[in-house]
Amino acid sequence: MQTLTVGLAERSYPIHVGGGLSGDSKLLAAATSARDVLLISNTVVAPLYAERVRNALAGRNVVEAILPDGEQHKSLGTAEKVFDVLIANRFGRDAAVLALGGGVVGDLAGFVAACYQRGIDFIQVPTTLLADVDSSVGGKTAVNHPAAKNMIGAFHQPKAVVIDTDLLRTLPDREIQAGIAEIIKYGLICDVGFLEWLEKNMTKMLARDPAALEQAILRSCQIKADIVARDEREHGDRALLNLGHTFGHAIEAATRYVGWLHGEAVGAGLLIATDMSHRMGMLAAGDVSRVKALLNAAGLRTEPPRIGAAAALDFMRIDKKVQSGRIRLVLLKRLGAACMLADYPDQILSETLTAHFGA
Amino acid sequence: MQTLTVGLAERSYPIHVGGGLSGDSKLLAAATSARDVLLISNTVVAPLYAERVRNALAGRNVVEAILPDGEQHKSLGTAEKVFDVLIANRFGRDAAVLALGGGVVGDLAGFVAACYQRGIDFIQVPTTLLADVDSSVGGKTAVNHPAAKNMIGAFHQPKAVVIDTDLLRTLPDREIQAGIAEIIKYGLICDVGFLEWLEKNMTKMLARDPAALEQAILRSCQIKADIVARDEREHGDRALLNLGHTFGHAIEAATRYVGWLHGEAVGAGLLIATDMSHRMGMLAAGDVSRVKALLNAAGLRTEPPRIGAAAALDFMRIDKKVQSGRIRLVLLKRLGAACMLADYPDQILSETLTAHFGA
Repeated sequence: MQTLTVGLAERSYPIHVGGGLSGDSKLLAAATSARDVLLISNTVVAPLYAERVRNALAGRNVVEAILPDGEQHKSLGTAEKVFDVLIANRFGRDAAVLALGGGVVGDLAGFVAACYQRGIDFIQVPTTLLADVDSSVGGKTAVNHPAAKNMIGAFHQPKAVVIDTDLLRTLPDREIQAGIAEIIKYGLICDVGFLEWLEKNMTKMLARDPAALEQAILRSCQIKADIVARDEREHGDRALLNLGHTFGHAIEAATRYVGWLHGEAVGAGLLIATDMSHRMGMLAAGDVSRVKALLNAAGLRTEPPRIGAAAALDFMRIDKKVQSGRIRLVLLKRLGAACMLADYPDQILSETLTAHFGA
Repeated sequence: MQTLTVGLAERSYPIHVGGGLSGDSKLLAAATSARDVLLISNTVVAPLYAERVRNALAGRNVVEAILPDGEQHKSLGTAEKVFDVLIANRFGRDAAVLALGGGVVGDLAGFVAACYQRGIDFIQVPTTLLADVDSSVGGKTAVNHPAAKNMIGAFHQPKAVVIDTDLLRTLPDREIQAGIAEIIKYGLICDVGFLEWLEKNMTKMLARDPAALEQAILRSCQIKADIVARDEREHGDRALLNLGHTFGHAIEAATRYVGWLHGEAVGAGLLIATDMSHRMGMLAAGDVSRVKALLNAAGLRTEPPRIGAAAALDFMRIDKKVQSGRIRLVLLKRLGAACMLADYPDQILSETLTAHFGA
């Protein structure tokens, strides 16, 4: 097991990474002393892993809320049902929520923990590679609005993130690939050495080599933890973590959050952001092909649906990074260095969108 | 105009108190630079006062969300409709929410502002005496769950609280009385001198003497601001502000949030808490009659519905102050000094509830 720390003063917490950790009762005991624990999971994950977590929580009063699988259930309506479970079981302010699942479960469970009685303990036990390296760390919680992702949410840091790399064994290939998209993102925004490492180790990662996956998770979490510690509420650098996401959101929204996994959409978005950075003269054409090659080596699609540039722009406008009506974009100054820009030429954005989404 | 400050480092904000302030464009400009403002009010208040606030916001893009009147609309369902309005108008993270109304509007608007895009600017323009002295200050936001009040919420401090004492002129007498219950609470928990002042000035306050009301509002807000500055998230002293509330919640829940205004229920709850403190030997019998006399002088009812002690206890258990299954109670060590107790004799609680709610 290796442990990182997200340094946020009295809200600091550990990220543990290793095999078998979801059954480690000592880690869970260190994270919360809550007697009442609501284990939130979904119908795919719970049959596989809920029992080992329950065993690790032996001696506590554990109640389960098992959600249907899928992004469409990351809604205020689902959150309301989970609040009903908490109330029906008379859970108090000293109860805890444990999320056992991917980003949908983690984001929704975190939102519920943030808002129940104005905030109770929360533990993340992510079960997908994407949740391991992204959504489980940093305290962003949310549910979707029918018109846009993550519009309703809160900042609520977990008490601990327990990443059990054994759980990746049962993950579908597509989910491994989607997680790798977010991992590539970390290399692009701030660590070209990590990008090179990924180029060399992609085959191992796709073969689920435990050491390669653990190293990629640790490096990704370390980058994210450092950024979150500097800028918890995204007033500055934290926004750079959204590289590829504004374009990716357009893909997800256009396809109504089905057909493309979040990580897959981000992967395609990374290429669009890279291409636009090239069109703005910040990257060489070779950099764009290099990023495309890495995404494709990870098995990721890089062709968004042909919804047209105008529709894509419209979806992008419904994004939390819009400020004073202007879409702010995360782009690349060079490979390994991201920047936030609001004063890009509209013409270049338009050309980029046309190239990727069609006219 | 007089101005107090809630001291919370980078989240500090002013409370302005005076006549005509809801039409003061400078105060609103100092509170937020948002170009887009969602004015949330209700069908009773908006026809009276929305226009003057809109005028004070001239030059900005103001959209209104006018809610039906009543505690039953302080729900996740209503919040969802307000999120729809924000999304439909494409309001960004740089928009602001302005609450023009009483506690229901303020709590719900604050919750919406807390959760929309994980938190946007929020301004409180309270229109009831109760909201002036209690709910508008301190950043507690929430909606109710059908089974219990304020179960779903967030801490989200406003950028400013603008208390326009002119707005009290149109307030129904019952609402003035309900506000006075919370004002009496401040005297009971930490300022016996203020309690004496209230005894002397109750007639003036009921006659809506502007100077008396302003003084009572200022003193109440000062006490609350000091406590919130010490303990924003209610890990300690802030819980003392809930004197009378756990008993009051039982009254409100038993009557399904109709029939008793929140402040009226708190008023009756104050007497129950005072009586229990006496039964525990902390107060003299004369103190109990003195509190009852003050509540009655304010026109407040002190006889809860006869739902029986067992039912009352059951409603009290669904309260955020329950910890490890134990109801923690705010009681009085003496008039002007409250304390939080979990180790009271159950027998005394039971006797107290029987005396007030029936067997």
